Amino acid sequence: MEAIKVGLLGFGTVGAGVVKVFQCNGTLLARRLGVPVELVRIADLDITTPRPVQVETTLLTTAAAAVLDDPDIDIVIELIGGYEPARSFVLRAIANGKHVVTANKALLALHGDEIFAAAEQAGVNVMFEAAVGGGIPIISAIKENLCANRFHSVFGILNGTCNYILTRMTENREDFATVLADAQAKGYAEADPTFDVEGIDTAHKLALLCNLCFGTSIAFDSIYREGITRITSLDIEFAREFGYTFKLLAIGKCVDGEIEARVHPTMLPHDHPLAEVDGVFNAVRLNGDFVGPVMLHGYGAGMEATASAVMGDVMAIVRNLRAGVGVRTPAMGCPQGDVARLAVKSMETLISPYYLRVFVNDQPGVLAQIAGVLGRHRISIESMLQPHRHEAAAVPIVLMTHVARERDVCAAMTEIDQLESICGRSLFVRIEEQPE
Amino acid sequence: MEAIKVGLLGFGTVGAGVVKVFQCNGTLLARRLGVPVELVRIADLDITTPRPVQVETTLLTTAAAAVLDDPDIDIVIELIGGYEPARSFVLRAIANGKHVVTANKALLALHGDEIFAAAEQAGVNVMFEAAVGGGIPIISAIKENLCANRFHSVFGILNGTCNYILTRMTENREDFATVLADAQAKGYAEADPTFDVEGIDTAHKLALLCNLCFGTSIAFDSIYREGITRITSLDIEFAREFGYTFKLLAIGKCVDGEIEARVHPTMLPHDHPLAEVDGVFNAVRLNGDFVGPVMLHGYGAGMEATASAVMGDVMAIVRNLRAGVGVRTPAMGCPQGDVARLAVKSMETLISPYYLRVFVNDQPGVLAQIAGVLGRHRISIESMLQPHRHEAAAVPIVLMTHVARERDVCAAMTEIDQLESICGRSLFVRIEEQPE
Repeated sequence: MEAIKVGLLGFGTVGAGVVKVFQCNGTLLARRLGVPVELVRIADLDITTPRPVQVETTLLTTAAAAVLDDPDIDIVIELIGGYEPARSFVLRAIANGKHVVTANKALLALHGDEIFAAAEQAGVNVMFEAAVGGGIPIISAIKENLCANRFHSVFGILNGTCNYILTRMTENREDFATVLADAQAKGYAEADPTFDVEGIDTAHKLALLCNLCFGTSIAFDSIYREGITRITSLDIEFAREFGYTFKLLAIGKCVDGEIEARVHPTMLPHDHPLAEVDGVFNAVRLNGDFVGPVMLHGYGAGMEATASAVMGDVMAIVRNLRAGVGVRTPAMGCPQGDVARLAVKSMETLISPYYLRVFVNDQPGVLAQIAGVLGRHRISIESMLQPHRHEAAAVPIVLMTHVARERDVCAAMTEIDQLESICGRSLFVRIEEQPE
Repeated sequence: MEAIKVGLLGFGTVGAGVVKVFQCNGTLLARRLGVPVELVRIADLDITTPRPVQVETTLLTTAAAAVLDDPDIDIVIELIGGYEPARSFVLRAIANGKHVVTANKALLALHGDEIFAAAEQAGVNVMFEAAVGGGIPIISAIKENLCANRFHSVFGILNGTCNYILTRMTENREDFATVLADAQAKGYAEADPTFDVEGIDTAHKLALLCNLCFGTSIAFDSIYREGITRITSLDIEFAREFGYTFKLLAIGKCVDGEIEARVHPTMLPHDHPLAEVDGVFNAVRLNGDFVGPVMLHGYGAGMEATASAVMGDVMAIVRNLRAGVGVRTPAMGCPQGDVARLAVKSMETLISPYYLRVFVNDQPGVLAQIAGVLGRHRISIESMLQPHRHEAAAVPIVLMTHVARERDVCAAMTEIDQLESICGRSLFVRIEEQPE
């Protein structure tokens, strides 16, 4: 059989990793696949800056069309990122009958329906293992081996930048701003870290996980999203005293045909399986009706781990082509026509225990006022901490509640923020206890 | 498309789980696959004992031939276990052009070459996700999504019975015999626990993992194997004092084209990722050249988790059939003709730190004797513990060594066992430090 030909769009970090896989493991891949696979073209606007891998200059082009419109190319790898021109390029590759492998979660979370429908129509594969969890084979686990399960829930630590920042804040008691600045200096965080620290990147990934697990297509905007910027090292210290660890968690659940989809800082008991996922690692914990809980853990980003996921998809497509098949498993695990439109639950209906933190002018009676507000909103307090170690006028009060309704907590906190003795805006954090 | 027809051999615990998947999730599976899948026949020698699921009696038969030779059946699930008649049945199904899904690690570890060659010849799939790690999708991760990697190592906790026993010995300071008897009473351990506690089951699974990861076919007998029967609660307590946890570990490595394959009780630092895998859970930690370390964790056994893995394989085959393909990925991840015959390293060459435990008559000078023997064999001691809390004549001495050569340790321990002041046979345990 003739070699399968691959074209690459985007020669950044992950693109260089993909080139490295071809260079280091090309022979091994051909042996496993029974057919050689060749990287024949690399398009990037910048083809002069040195990369961590050497490539023949004849492979390089600044024209995406040289990949998208080359009739010899079977598979296009899209590693440009962002919405445009990635969307147009992917649609053009599909229209040209090419299979597509992408790591672009932003694109698929917002334009997945359009892209997957086009791919189904054209009879080509769109695969995206690298879009969620870096090298962790979570997408194919859901679509392939665990596909006999009805999934109840998916929990993930999906953003290495946030997890690195929270881990360092926890281990070294550093402030958010200090750690972020240092992470930026070291290249662990982007110059504009908004997508990461505001939870947008995590929400993109959660959208894909929810759609795959629950066979639905949720509007990206319907995902509740809260970043880690308001967490202070003081909160992390209080959490530790209560036996909890802070993580930016992606939570997806399907209950009675309704979807819960939310991204927010979450307090987990120290011995929760996801509490121990530190630094740049990612992890996903699925719960299926037959398999029970399954957890996958590994590098969530990086040149080489992400390239492993990209190339796993390329090899899956090569195996299809070698067997003479176009699409064997649809992009979302079932035909597009069978994708449901399940409703996303409003956050107001969430029921959870909460961590509440306010700063008060240390006047007698303020705790009674707070407790009064909480009581009127049917929120019962499990424990309270009012350390007198701060010399500033404003002292923190921390409360852990029993299970309460989010609507009541929001109303109570709004009311508490208006009390005269309260300084600044209060914080509440949802708590996940041990998983089932 | 006409429904795909499945026949089941063996209506035990996992067989009942498979029936339950069909009953609970049949509609969901058909939606995901785009074609219905039907369980049309169940063969078992015992069709009268009540099972945890109800099936129409017309489905049941005592004749395996009614499954193996039925031309309507596309896929045979083999859940009989053991070598014969499972081997003959699987070969007959293959000869009849049927695809096979099996959970039988013993069969594949010993007769895999014969079965996989027959399947390749016949152009049918033999899939075995359920043979290793219960519901954990480790086989398909290695064969499919992570297949762009050259694997360096695989570590696994692969036997729920052993892990349950060691966990209880650790948590409750109970003896091996006590926990085993209780586990048998509760149905967590077999009446004859030899395969589990002697590490044979774990070695079967390690054979499959090594063959898949390293593209080889190792003789089952070349795997070094040591069970957990000689571990005492005293050893577990000492290990804890030194900061270690006991696990029965399967270890596979590929170094310079040679394979290391061993199953034995291993001491892991408390914060090692595999040290925290407790009870009936299984976990596998792979290390690939691109993906780095990846860990998968979940239920290693049980009716439902194992049925999830069996049915994942069935669905993969259905997707092939629906796409008009016979075999898309070979059973061992590459064509049988490309399977290498890598040499398995002798244990004598192993280099590791060790835990050594001897019982001595508490005579002055005995420690000097022991230290002398170790020194002559180039084994250097990192720390020592000689608790005086035992009133019996024989007291334990425990030593942790620096990195030493297994050949030297064996020679030294043989010599130590012959010292006059030594009571009974000594024990040495290999230590794995934090993984790379």
